[in-house]
Amino acid sequence: MMSFTSPLAVGVLGRGVVDPSLPIIHADDAGLLRGLAAFETLRVYAGRPFAMAEHLQRLCHSAERMRLPAPDPAALEDLAEETLAAADVADCSLRFTVTGGRPSSDPVAFVVVMPLPPELEAIRARGVRAVSLQLGTDPRLRLDAPWLLDGVKSTSYAVNMAAFDEARRRGAEDAVFIAAEGSVLEGPVTNVWWRRAGMLYTPSLDLGILAGVTRAHVLRLADEAGYRVAEGWFPLAELAAADEAFSSSSVRELMPIVALDDAALGNGRPGEAALGLQAALRRAVAA
Amino acid sequence: MMSFTSPLAVGVLGRGVVDPSLPIIHADDAGLLRGLAAFETLRVYAGRPFAMAEHLQRLCHSAERMRLPAPDPAALEDLAEETLAAADVADCSLRFTVTGGRPSSDPVAFVVVMPLPPELEAIRARGVRAVSLQLGTDPRLRLDAPWLLDGVKSTSYAVNMAAFDEARRRGAEDAVFIAAEGSVLEGPVTNVWWRRAGMLYTPSLDLGILAGVTRAHVLRLADEAGYRVAEGWFPLAELAAADEAFSSSSVRELMPIVALDDAALGNGRPGEAALGLQAALRRAVAA
Repeated sequence: MMSFTSPLAVGVLGRGVVDPSLPIIHADDAGLLRGLAAFETLRVYAGRPFAMAEHLQRLCHSAERMRLPAPDPAALEDLAEETLAAADVADCSLRFTVTGGRPSSDPVAFVVVMPLPPELEAIRARGVRAVSLQLGTDPRLRLDAPWLLDGVKSTSYAVNMAAFDEARRRGAEDAVFIAAEGSVLEGPVTNVWWRRAGMLYTPSLDLGILAGVTRAHVLRLADEAGYRVAEGWFPLAELAAADEAFSSSSVRELMPIVALDDAALGNGRPGEAALGLQAALRRAVAA
Repeated sequence: MMSFTSPLAVGVLGRGVVDPSLPIIHADDAGLLRGLAAFETLRVYAGRPFAMAEHLQRLCHSAERMRLPAPDPAALEDLAEETLAAADVADCSLRFTVTGGRPSSDPVAFVVVMPLPPELEAIRARGVRAVSLQLGTDPRLRLDAPWLLDGVKSTSYAVNMAAFDEARRRGAEDAVFIAAEGSVLEGPVTNVWWRRAGMLYTPSLDLGILAGVTRAHVLRLADEAGYRVAEGWFPLAELAAADEAFSSSSVRELMPIVALDDAALGNGRPGEAALGLQAALRRAVAA
């Protein structure tokens, strides 16, 4: 599911659209050498980036937390529009990256337009298998430790990628991280949700998880659809015993989770909340 | 102390020495986008890289743990020699980086030759102030979790860099990470040591810390110098109450720690073990 393909177009702040076959980053770039870069990924529907302002706001927050100079959201929006026009595709994803740049130079900001994974809707129709992976962290100790960069979307993502490797090794496609004391946290690139009867559950942000842009939209859509939602610290057993579960992310949207650690989750098929809220998200996007 | 300067020379595997003012990495490189890159930094004394074989062995191990194709150590050694010759400096540092590369292409390996921080010996003569920073991790849970990449030197280093930011904010120059249950772990880019009478202490590798190449050399040099060494899980209070403390790393070598969390460590001056073992390291390097 995490298959990576070549970009449809690349734009660099201050330079505009560039040839994707040419390198853009120097050997001494702080993002390249030390993972000091902020990023955002979002989806483009019929040529229109969805929730771009919210993503750019979080990008600025992430950059600030890593002491990178704040990028100019308006300039990034213009660059995105220009790069999207060059890609000339209606439905795709956009990725913004702001790296620390070279010593004594400005940060480098660039946008890549990526195709959507072609198999995404087929996977949604059947749902994904997930494994739970211990993250070995104590959320209570992390609350007062801003240097741990909880809630910051940085390119220091090796552990997230290794979690996908481990999921694949176990015959699954996604992972759910668990804190040391047992609370469900998030997926490597998603937020996690589950339903029991008319109640939805999702880990709360004070666990140090990422405040997903799509998570915020799902909170609103769930309320409109008549679900009650509990945000909190929940043990893995509650997720395992749910009637259904799903993840949320900007590119994958709402993705049913139909198995957890080799056992069926709910009835082992995509559930009504996942499919209903996915349909509601698509209506919101088109509005 | 973590001041970053421009490289003296850059070499890319398969291309040889390149112009450092030109970019070498593409917008869709996995190391750039997701911190999926292994690296090693080592020191060059009088034109000779020290312990290069050990560093390249660890580089291959790190790459393997991240499922990157293993680089060829012999080819990297040749590239390093060629790039060092282009830099034409006797004393400097070398940094190897192996990134995941672009989709459906080979990984990218490159070497940068960096000048040594000019102030390094002045800092060694006075020692550094350090702060202890909670890492919020439970080492017991991490032992069986290879996806957490403990012991892997990846470029996903944003938290390490944020720790330096926090140290600076508190008027210090270095940090010592502490596990959730209170054990001393390591510095953001160093291993940590302290002495009480004739006994040296350093955190053991089963805490999930990096197996420093210089750490291994110091273990041997300490034995030769008549110190007994205890590797283990030690609370911060033992470091704070030590007669002296120091860090070890390939570029900084042995660096005295003279203050911890705003209190003097030992007599507040560089200690006999730090200075004696630093001298022994220099003799070993010259041998």
